[in-house]
Amino acid sequence: MSRADDPQVPGRRRFFASAAGAVAVTAIGPAARAAAAAAASDIEPFWGMHQGGIATPQQAHAYVAAFDLTTAKRADVIGLLRAWTTAAARLTRGLPVAASTDDSGAEPADSGEALGLPARRLTITFGFGADLFIKGDVDRYRLAQSRPEALIDLPRFNGDKLIPERTGGDLCVQACADDPQVAFHAVRQLARLAYSAAKMRWAQAGFVPSYSKQETPRNLMGFKDGTMNVPVNNRALMDQFVWVGAEGGWMRHGSYLVARPIRIALEHWDRMKLGFQEQVVGRHKRSGAPLGREYETDALDLDATDSDGNPRIPENSHARLAAPESNDGAQVLRRPYSYDNGLSFTAERWPPWRQGMEFDAGLLFVCYQRDPRTGFVKIFDKMSKFDMMNQFVTHVGGGLFACPSGAAEGGYIGQTLFEIA
Amino acid sequence: MSRADDPQVPGRRRFFASAAGAVAVTAIGPAARAAAAAAASDIEPFWGMHQGGIATPQQAHAYVAAFDLTTAKRADVIGLLRAWTTAAARLTRGLPVAASTDDSGAEPADSGEALGLPARRLTITFGFGADLFIKGDVDRYRLAQSRPEALIDLPRFNGDKLIPERTGGDLCVQACADDPQVAFHAVRQLARLAYSAAKMRWAQAGFVPSYSKQETPRNLMGFKDGTMNVPVNNRALMDQFVWVGAEGGWMRHGSYLVARPIRIALEHWDRMKLGFQEQVVGRHKRSGAPLGREYETDALDLDATDSDGNPRIPENSHARLAAPESNDGAQVLRRPYSYDNGLSFTAERWPPWRQGMEFDAGLLFVCYQRDPRTGFVKIFDKMSKFDMMNQFVTHVGGGLFACPSGAAEGGYIGQTLFEIA
Repeated sequence: MSRADDPQVPGRRRFFASAAGAVAVTAIGPAARAAAAAAASDIEPFWGMHQGGIATPQQAHAYVAAFDLTTAKRADVIGLLRAWTTAAARLTRGLPVAASTDDSGAEPADSGEALGLPARRLTITFGFGADLFIKGDVDRYRLAQSRPEALIDLPRFNGDKLIPERTGGDLCVQACADDPQVAFHAVRQLARLAYSAAKMRWAQAGFVPSYSKQETPRNLMGFKDGTMNVPVNNRALMDQFVWVGAEGGWMRHGSYLVARPIRIALEHWDRMKLGFQEQVVGRHKRSGAPLGREYETDALDLDATDSDGNPRIPENSHARLAAPESNDGAQVLRRPYSYDNGLSFTAERWPPWRQGMEFDAGLLFVCYQRDPRTGFVKIFDKMSKFDMMNQFVTHVGGGLFACPSGAAEGGYIGQTLFEIA
Repeated sequence: MSRADDPQVPGRRRFFASAAGAVAVTAIGPAARAAAAAAASDIEPFWGMHQGGIATPQQAHAYVAAFDLTTAKRADVIGLLRAWTTAAARLTRGLPVAASTDDSGAEPADSGEALGLPARRLTITFGFGADLFIKGDVDRYRLAQSRPEALIDLPRFNGDKLIPERTGGDLCVQACADDPQVAFHAVRQLARLAYSAAKMRWAQAGFVPSYSKQETPRNLMGFKDGTMNVPVNNRALMDQFVWVGAEGGWMRHGSYLVARPIRIALEHWDRMKLGFQEQVVGRHKRSGAPLGREYETDALDLDATDSDGNPRIPENSHARLAAPESNDGAQVLRRPYSYDNGLSFTAERWPPWRQGMEFDAGLLFVCYQRDPRTGFVKIFDKMSKFDMMNQFVTHVGGGLFACPSGAAEGGYIGQTLFEIA
């Protein structure tokens, strides 16, 4: 059947011609969201020394996306970052991506699925992948000289099973909000603004369960996740571990993002006895306390031994290997989310090597640090070799991104990079 | 390298031996959730004439999963439904799937990721696919005689692109809650209880944006979705359109579920002018009003014409084709969710036939009805041929499931089926 005969083709062109006369077109302006935007407690600041979404108290939903640039022109990259900055400043206030005066002859500036919703604490955080600076041997945007030493190529870690289509990217966007559709909406608007300069490479949504603020949320292993973390309200520790200092040049006041979807073999994990699960993690499941202790906030005493002289926190347990004491004091700020992509065909990597349709679910690991060499890489290199949890988890994608400082109103994210080169 | 030499293998068996002596094992009991469960307003009733999750005011998150039975025994199917019923009654009260007295030597009864969370209005709704009754020509469970006439094989609709791995199933579970991890947790526990009798076939999560109760939520097309629907508090209309009556035999007080993930070509839709989008839908984007009207609640006047005599609501618009007036009064109760699976490689079905990594996102269409022949099939057969929206949407999976009545305490879901045969 030819397309002309296909009853599914309703003749869109004819349609446009008649629509102009027949339809009272409603402009999608900012008015509907203005009232909501006035609820300032719902709004996280966008402009400032640091980008939002790093020290921001963690929102319930995340949508992390990476983009590949398709343009060859440096000016286009700058233009995109300017447009993204303007858009993000509006979106994080609960406004549509652009003010529309008359959409009658145009695509709607905003796709509309967040119209009428308040800001829901939306933050949008931008990062630069190593390929932005030099891709293969090509210095596409005259940025090769500005690539930070800290923006390394991540080593191949033991057990990595990175899927190319879920890995890397020239640019990264982390949108977090207390509503999943608000986070999705934000990335979608940015993708639209990028049509002529970049295309999406991968995207991964995540969520945090709705525990009260006093409780540490549990991940899909059923354990509390986040008991020990860099305290975001401690300026000195944030400066020490999270914010790039004067050593970073144009990256000063920025931070390095490692985002990695980590698949958890839930079917495998669920068949393990509770005692073993707790040995793997190094903490009690219910209370979150270090093994042998009572309370979640009890100190993780790595020297404690049982009556046989064996360490209470096993040598290769997750909590021990991740602890600052095991890593010369290294720390990163974690902002992890659970993820769930339904089922996919999976061959488990461990006995009894089941294969079939299994949960494609786990942890969207997100962390920020001053320098990945002394942060994630330092900590994870050892964990990737020895952590007992590796029997159950597989890193399947993600990447490392340099997130520059925030912007002052009128400026744009990345300006420090492009104006020094 | 042999497994014995592999440093990643921590010798799990040795581990268990030492763990028994070394670790104070914490039992995961119901205590932590009991307090939360006392917050009755957070709990949707489980026992009753109708299953929950149908007339229940829509929760913010859904997790729909289908299972294939792997057992050959009728008794195993009954046993599974009994176990699922008991589990669902606990889970919907905010309790772990089973009371654990001592987990030291066993897998934890509950995987734990909802431990300490209240019920979050969780509902769990069970349905039976046609294959439960007869698969190919095989009457596995002596149920062929009991297959309801209404549980038809769905016809192949115009434009269907159903992926086998996302379609069908012997059993279906719809878990809905105001927390995504609570919904996921529920299905995961049911999957664990099914290990010896059934395996998951497909699963799809969905979400509704957090509009106030007075506002109709918007779908990913940016339009309000749900303006016209069967009112769940109108007993007469629910009996007429949603609940199976005396004609249904063992299905009386049940309902038929159609669940279909519908991919939306967002990149394509976003390039359409506002006027055209509104012609496709038949409503204004911002207000939700029928074309040419002012308010969302204004009647959808299918006879209204413009000054040229053309219908204000276009002949092939979505709203017109879906309206009861266009379908001999047919109605279904819709409970749709947005979904987002990140990106996937997609070849668009319409000009300019773009292909590449695009959003795997859209609408998890969910509806309930008294009889699919006079409900979804009646309405969608015409829509699948003529709806202008078909340029932008593709049905990629799902199925039809017979959801029996609710159970009285002590009974089990599906008892009416198994005790008549």
